[in-house]
Amino acid sequence: MRYYMILRLVIVGFGNVGQEFARLLQSKREWLLRTKSLDVEVLAVSTKTKGSLMSKTKLDLDRILQEISARGSLTGYGSEATNLSPLEIIRRCEADLMIELTTLNIDSGQPATDHIKVAMDVGMDVVTANKGPIAYAYRELRNRARSRGVRFRFEGTVMDGAPIFSLVERTLPGCQVTGLTGILNSTSNYVLTEMSRGRSMQEAIEDARKMGIAEADPSLDIDGWDATAKITALANVLMDADKNPKNVDRKGIREIGIDDMKAAADHGKRIKLIATAGVLGEDIALRVRPELIGPDSPFWSVEGTSSALTISTDFMGELTIYENNPGLTQTAYAVFSDLLLVVESIRSGSI
Amino acid sequence: MRYYMILRLVIVGFGNVGQEFARLLQSKREWLLRTKSLDVEVLAVSTKTKGSLMSKTKLDLDRILQEISARGSLTGYGSEATNLSPLEIIRRCEADLMIELTTLNIDSGQPATDHIKVAMDVGMDVVTANKGPIAYAYRELRNRARSRGVRFRFEGTVMDGAPIFSLVERTLPGCQVTGLTGILNSTSNYVLTEMSRGRSMQEAIEDARKMGIAEADPSLDIDGWDATAKITALANVLMDADKNPKNVDRKGIREIGIDDMKAAADHGKRIKLIATAGVLGEDIALRVRPELIGPDSPFWSVEGTSSALTISTDFMGELTIYENNPGLTQTAYAVFSDLLLVVESIRSGSI
Repeated sequence: MRYYMILRLVIVGFGNVGQEFARLLQSKREWLLRTKSLDVEVLAVSTKTKGSLMSKTKLDLDRILQEISARGSLTGYGSEATNLSPLEIIRRCEADLMIELTTLNIDSGQPATDHIKVAMDVGMDVVTANKGPIAYAYRELRNRARSRGVRFRFEGTVMDGAPIFSLVERTLPGCQVTGLTGILNSTSNYVLTEMSRGRSMQEAIEDARKMGIAEADPSLDIDGWDATAKITALANVLMDADKNPKNVDRKGIREIGIDDMKAAADHGKRIKLIATAGVLGEDIALRVRPELIGPDSPFWSVEGTSSALTISTDFMGELTIYENNPGLTQTAYAVFSDLLLVVESIRSGSI
Repeated sequence: MRYYMILRLVIVGFGNVGQEFARLLQSKREWLLRTKSLDVEVLAVSTKTKGSLMSKTKLDLDRILQEISARGSLTGYGSEATNLSPLEIIRRCEADLMIELTTLNIDSGQPATDHIKVAMDVGMDVVTANKGPIAYAYRELRNRARSRGVRFRFEGTVMDGAPIFSLVERTLPGCQVTGLTGILNSTSNYVLTEMSRGRSMQEAIEDARKMGIAEADPSLDIDGWDATAKITALANVLMDADKNPKNVDRKGIREIGIDDMKAAADHGKRIKLIATAGVLGEDIALRVRPELIGPDSPFWSVEGTSSALTISTDFMGELTIYENNPGLTQTAYAVFSDLLLVVESIRSGSI
């Protein structure tokens, strides 16, 4: 006799991360069955421009990936195709867990925040890689998850798959976070690295776009908005900050020229876009700005698309986590690992 | 109505780490009661040269610390003083959890391994900061813990309080570790840093001794034995290696002179003692040796008593954890955090 758990998903947003997550899920299917006694079924997929699917029984993930890749659309998948809105799909499908992977809206964190609220209201656990809701509405969503008795995880929102939220939550019990500082935006770090090698900002941005790492709107990277959303999310969760991205003292890298890079190099320094959260009296102060760093900083070797975060704590001093050139696989892994932690929590009966 | 858990400890080994752990426990007493509904009582303390104590009821930890500090001995504490051996104390005391903090014996991992076996056999959970047992007998101890139904944690054995074992176990589900490389011995790293600033190895070793970070026998640090034990422990736990320190291809820093440091600096490099574990065919290969590293290595800024570890994985690529100048507090915190994770596991009914 053996028991299996069947976990049914709705995936909202099915761009690069969503598709990579679907591929990871397929490649791990046997492993999940064998070692976790877990079968994951996708009941619905909702996209903004590629059509949506909803079904009472499991969808064929391989075929979904093929349709997207061959036709760029799900409308030809079959009778499961639907014109229902994301919120309607979340309400009507009978999934246990919502995976929220829509793109960042830096002005409001919407519509992702509403997707998450509705999913929680119908009793679903939620995993997201969208930093908007954590930057704009973390406290409200955390409280809602508690009152509804559902699980809410979001490791992929910051530093791709590197475990940051889990690290503090699960490995540093009784430790208080007193400050955070990091290089959190891959594109601007890549651009600064390329500029230090003599290329122009425009060329480097083009490269980043071709590599698929740049946001559709380059201002999100270059003007520091992505780093701003990430440091806000980190401070909200790890320092109980209750801030939003508009509270961040923000300066991007748009005005940095090749001359600035040369001047820095002449002094043995590098320019990096640094995000910081610190305690300021009773308040938490958040800042994103270009800073000069020297070779003895742990951030010196954080080049290209790598990222790093230093977590200052009361008992553990300073810990730095450094992620070397992550790609889409790492972000997809973050969603996958959150899914596994949700399953673990369901099985242990804890929230 | 409110329920409290009383957790009763036996502490075996009461040197610097043990005393710092006792102070941390005292300073967190109110917090443990308030937020964890947990009361921690020490029933026995066993030391090699400072006398031992055993009691049916809780000992006064403040008085124990005072006796040690004022007299360097526990023999004047009162009727709880005993001449029983550590193994007798473990067998006879009625503690729930053993904290094993004896010093490293690099030749065998003893007597700590026997302390742990006996504690497990009488049904105690075990927390240790002694790397010997993990380097010499991990697989046996892990299996024994499973068969006895007890918990076994050892975060403090490597990189002080930086969560390494917990990180992989609790935040990277489904990820396989494919390689490890790190700067793991504080004293040799401190010595190399000081030598790069023009001081002699002997002066730097003397400093490290005064700072209380050097092992009593400098060979453990300088000849790479401490790093060897740590990389073995890491590989045993994270890569299922079943090795012992004698299987490590080991070369320390003893033969490095000021001239070598200067030659490295002339080429823009630094010399670091690097420990590595890698997959070699069906086997795991372990190595400790001085290596030249450049400023673009994440290890470049690991100076003084800092340490760092890069964990290579199948899904998450490379993650580096960097601990900035840890002290005794961090090692004591590692023991404390393991204790809290044991309590969490007891409460959730899992092992």
